[in-house]
Parts: sequence; structure tokens; C-alpha cells
Amino acid sequence: MKPINFTRGIPADESYPLEQVAACASTVLHGPNALETMKYGTGYGFNPLREIIAAKYGTKLENVMVGNGSLGFIDLIGLAWLKAGDAVLVESPTYDRTLTLLRRHGLNPVGVTLESDGVKLEDFEKAVLEHQPKLVYLIADFQNPSGSVMSLEKRKRVLELSEQHGFFVLEDAPYRPLRYRGEDVPSLYELNPERVMQMSSYTKQISPGVRVGTLVGDAGVMAKLAKAANDTYISAAFIGQAIVAEFLARGFLEPQLEALRNLYAPRLDAITRALETHLPDLNFTRPEGGFFLSLELPKDTSVTSLLEQASGAGLALTDGRGFFPNPNDGNQFLRLPFCALEPAEIDEGIKRLAGLIRA
Amino acid sequence: MKPINFTRGIPADESYPLEQVAACASTVLHGPNALETMKYGTGYGFNPLREIIAAKYGTKLENVMVGNGSLGFIDLIGLAWLKAGDAVLVESPTYDRTLTLLRRHGLNPVGVTLESDGVKLEDFEKAVLEHQPKLVYLIADFQNPSGSVMSLEKRKRVLELSEQHGFFVLEDAPYRPLRYRGEDVPSLYELNPERVMQMSSYTKQISPGVRVGTLVGDAGVMAKLAKAANDTYISAAFIGQAIVAEFLARGFLEPQLEALRNLYAPRLDAITRALETHLPDLNFTRPEGGFFLSLELPKDTSVTSLLEQASGAGLALTDGRGFFPNPNDGNQFLRLPFCALEPAEIDEGIKRLAGLIRA
Repeated sequence: MKPINFTRGIPADESYPLEQVAACASTVLHGPNALETMKYGTGYGFNPLREIIAAKYGTKLENVMVGNGSLGFIDLIGLAWLKAGDAVLVESPTYDRTLTLLRRHGLNPVGVTLESDGVKLEDFEKAVLEHQPKLVYLIADFQNPSGSVMSLEKRKRVLELSEQHGFFVLEDAPYRPLRYRGEDVPSLYELNPERVMQMSSYTKQISPGVRVGTLVGDAGVMAKLAKAANDTYISAAFIGQAIVAEFLARGFLEPQLEALRNLYAPRLDAITRALETHLPDLNFTRPEGGFFLSLELPKDTSVTSLLEQASGAGLALTDGRGFFPNPNDGNQFLRLPFCALEPAEIDEGIKRLAGLIRA
Repeated sequence: MKPINFTRGIPADESYPLEQVAACASTVLHGPNALETMKYGTGYGFNPLREIIAAKYGTKLENVMVGNGSLGFIDLIGLAWLKAGDAVLVESPTYDRTLTLLRRHGLNPVGVTLESDGVKLEDFEKAVLEHQPKLVYLIADFQNPSGSVMSLEKRKRVLELSEQHGFFVLEDAPYRPLRYRGEDVPSLYELNPERVMQMSSYTKQISPGVRVGTLVGDAGVMAKLAKAANDTYISAAFIGQAIVAEFLARGFLEPQLEALRNLYAPRLDAITRALETHLPDLNFTRPEGGFFLSLELPKDTSVTSLLEQASGAGLALTDGRGFFPNPNDGNQFLRLPFCALEPAEIDEGIKRLAGLIRA
């Protein structure tokens, strides 16, 4: 039985705009910027792309950095900005790779309970007072791993606290353009560009092959991170960054996002329907976009026991505990990425999961 | 007066094989591996390129890793293999960016005096006994910053000691294919593939724009580094790695290296001649390849005083002390990169330098 894979949040193979990427590569390597793509640059990234991003955000070049995907920025923050022992507030659950990188630098990720509309404010305020963090890391839109979206009210309150207590918010926003229905909530960055640094990535929007992430925010922090990037790898792979610049300049992004929404929306519907059909008694999140939803397992079913039997039941699952600063908080947590599976696979996968949970 | 730049070891603008890179990009993005370049991979790098490198070295896939330039491997070694406080023997002088990365991880770079034919063996043996290093970092061919090449006899002795004392040698070999005259000395890796890990980079051979470095060596170490790479950036920019794979598969590399040798050899001759003409009393290294030679300043001339007056004299110079584990050892050291300058600029630059030194 071929296992159905509910592990990683990766784009669907059929989502990659290969023809457009090839056309952009050709234009770039035959065009007036070709020599610039061949040369060393700075840790800030490829300038023509930085200029496009700065214009998009309505900010200055010094506020924009482009790197090898957005994850690398967290590494640079640990290297060049925060100090070992510093507390960083995160949602509980949060992106597991962020936890790994924070811990690599001896930082202290402090989890704040996540509700269906963002962090629990009471706990958040308590954690701010107790830990006086320099940084708060939030995935406000279609959160990884839960799928939740933070409400406008909570965003505003977090930003008020940020003004009062002087912390920065690092808003990780790779899924924000992937809304399949409903209305956008203003981003944290839009609400307060002074106190928010927004990361995004063209990995989910174009392809991991270009390996391009962007960070927009405080110029002083950006200068520190660019220096550390330069110390680590001098400058990034500019061919990929130039391809993205061309992709944006030609107006390929909006149609690509539209294609992604059309591809992924039925998959979100399929997983919701499958859960309602096969696991009607369980609670699961109901996102309006992104890559993930999450399921609360019955009290007597731990994610570890499920994992042990998953491959026998034709499933590949992820240990939910890895998403929690305190792993035991994730004993009943299951993340379900749905974008890289076709609707029929999703239905079959959830049916297998239901059988496993009942057994 | 437009300053003549003797600072960074960068390729000449006219050296980049833009047409071939564009042709390779087109083939890759329209070919059967196109989808693979779009997807996430592992920290080991793009498999088709790893396979080519493994065949080139006559080794297995598990011994090969491809990353964002070779510098990043040093960061991964600090992250995932060595422990803070570990001694790493290095040539004194050595590549300044390596020193920066070793120190970032709390490693202890121990300098061993470099002679015109490699490390001073007596000092090397003493340092091995005193510090019991796990790793020795050597740039055996056309060393950065000195230009020296390690003799066969010294290579063999270092490898004997490596067998006796159990240290690994990290051979940084980006300049090795850039020999303009004379005969190759067998590489450390060729002499002992069990105890040597060889780094190389297509930055100097093709372009920094592809950002591709390779590391070949012990499979156990490689697994640790690949895991740390995956934790940091998941996988690298595969489009650049795929372009390099295609460049190698098509046989573009050897003609490209030949073109580089033809471009750079007259520049090496020009700087040697200029030094003999304008600074006949000073000692300088006489490399047969690579990017750099180095000059010993008169005892009463420090590199710092030279730097202070350089821009007024139409020169950009690098502080030689940065290349030394003990910076004061570099007070009379000047690195002179010659590849990115045309012969007439080189002559004019050395003339200005001579004026400055005499003043």
C-alpha cells in the first residue's frame, strides 16, 4: 500500500510555473543585468530585487533584505542580533524549524497558547511581563502548523504591547497570499511597520528552486543581519534572486497566485469534507487558506501511538509534539498539510486515519 | 584619481561564461530534471550534481555534499561537528573569512607559520602535540592570502601526522585548477582520501552567481553537516546547482578553465614585473597560479600606516593583519590580488604603491 503523505508542507509538483521561470532565466541571463547576476554582491541580496520589494512595501532599500529562503533570517537573528538566553515569544504550537534554530543559538522560545483566532491574549500579556522579550515570532496568517488566522483585535493588542514594552514582532507571512476565501485581515506589518519585521518567501509562491526569502523592517537590525549573512556566505545565489525579480517585473506573480488558489482551494474543501465524513466527532481547525489544518486527537489517542502504526496503515504522519515549545503539549496534536495531495488521495488518507484512530 | 583596487579576491568581470550559463539554464529548465530543480531537496544538495562530483572524485554519493559556496561548509563544521574550544590549526596567514567563522563558533584557530612551500613543519608538529586538534585547515594550492603552494614533502608529512594523531585535514582548494605554469602537486585529498575533506567552489571557476561549493570526504562527517544544512536552509538554490551540473556534463568546464588561465596568466606576469620594476628591494611570493601574491613591507612601514594614506594615493588596500590568527604578525603583510585588474592597471597600481612606501 503506497503511503499517503501528511508530513511536510511542500507545494504540489504541478504548481511550479516552470515555463515562466525558464522564460525569466533566459531574459535575465541575456539581459542588461546579466553581469550583475554573475558577480559577488552584499549580504543584503540582489539589488534589483530589493528595489522591487521596497516599492511593493512602500519602504526604503535599507529596510529590505533578500536571502536564501526566510528560515535563514531566523538563523541570522540568532547570530547577529539576539543574545543567548534571550526569550522569544512564539505561538504554541509554532513552526518546528523555527524552534530548532532559536534553540541552536541558545535562545529561549516561550510558548503562548494558540487559539483559533491567534494567541490567547491573557497568556501573551503575562508572558510579556514575565520574560520581557526583545522579539515575538508570529505566523498570523494560516499559521503553520495549526492553520489559524489571528483576528484584527488581537493583532492590534499585540502591537500596543509592542509599543509599550519595546519588543519587535517578527511576522512570518509565507502563506498570506494563499487565501482561498474570505477577506484579508491587515498584516501586522501594515498595522505597524516600525515595530514589525515581515518575512515572506517565494518558495511557496514560485518554487523552492529559486530559494528566495525576503525580510522587511528596521534598518538597524537589517544592517546587522546583512553583515552576518556576508560573513557566512558573502552573497546569495543571485541567479535565483534575479529570476524572481524578473518574475515580479513581468507581472507573473498575481496569475501564479491565482493558479495556486485554484489548485489548492478544492484540496482544502476535500480535507474538510473528509474530516466531517470520516471523523465527525473530532475538532479540527477551519482555515480559509494556507497549507495546513490541524486535528485534535481523542484524549485516549496519543500522536506517538498513531505514528507507530501509521506506516502499517498506509500513512505518513508528523509527530505533533515537535511544534510545541513544551513537547508534551502536543500529545493530541496532528498537523495535516493538504496542498500536495489530490482530493481523492486526501479522502482516502483521512479514511485510513479514521480507521487508525478508531482501532 | 580613480582608485586601483587591490582588496578582494574576485574574478574578473570579463571572465564570466555568460553564454554558457544561459544555455545551461535553458537546457535545465526545459529538460527532464526541470521539476527536480523546482522542489525541496536535502541538505546534501542537488543529486545530479552530487553524482557528477562523486564520479569526478571516484567516490560514493554519501561522501559528497554541495552547498552555497564553500565558505558555508566551515559554518556547518562549527555548528554540527566541532565543539566550542576545539583547536583548529590554520596557516598563518590564512583566509580571513575562515578565521571569522571559526571564531563565531568559539573555535580556537591556532596559527602555524607559513613558509613559501607551506607550513613550517617544526612548528606544525609542535602545535599538533600541544593542541591535539580534531581539524587542520589548509589551502595547499595558491594559498589565500600568500599565494604559496605546499610542497609534496610537506603534504606527505602532514598526512603522516594526521594518521598518527587522528586529525582530519580540511583542504580548501578553490584555486587549484588555476595553475598558469609549472606542474601540479598531488592534492592532499589525492594523497589520502580517508583523512582529507576537500572543499572546492565554482565561484572562482564559473561565477559567484551560481553560488555552488562542494565538499568531499568522510561520510559520517558529511551526514552531520547535511543535517545542519537542512536545519538552516532546508535545501540550497537548486537552479544554480543544476546549471553547474549541466555545465560539467556538457564539458564546458575545461575550456572555461583554459580561458581563465589565458586571461589571468598575463596578469600574474604583469604584477611580478611591476614589483620587480617599482619595488626591487622587497620580498614577494612568486606563485604559479591562483588569485594572489603577497608582499613583505619594509620593517619601518606598517600596513596600517599604508592603509591610512592609500585612498589619497589612488589605491584600495586590505589590512593584512586580518589574515593572521595573531593580528600583529601581519603588520608588514600586504596581499595583492591581481586577477580582476588589467595589466596596465596593475603596473600603475604597483607604481602608486611604490611611491607610497617610499614616502
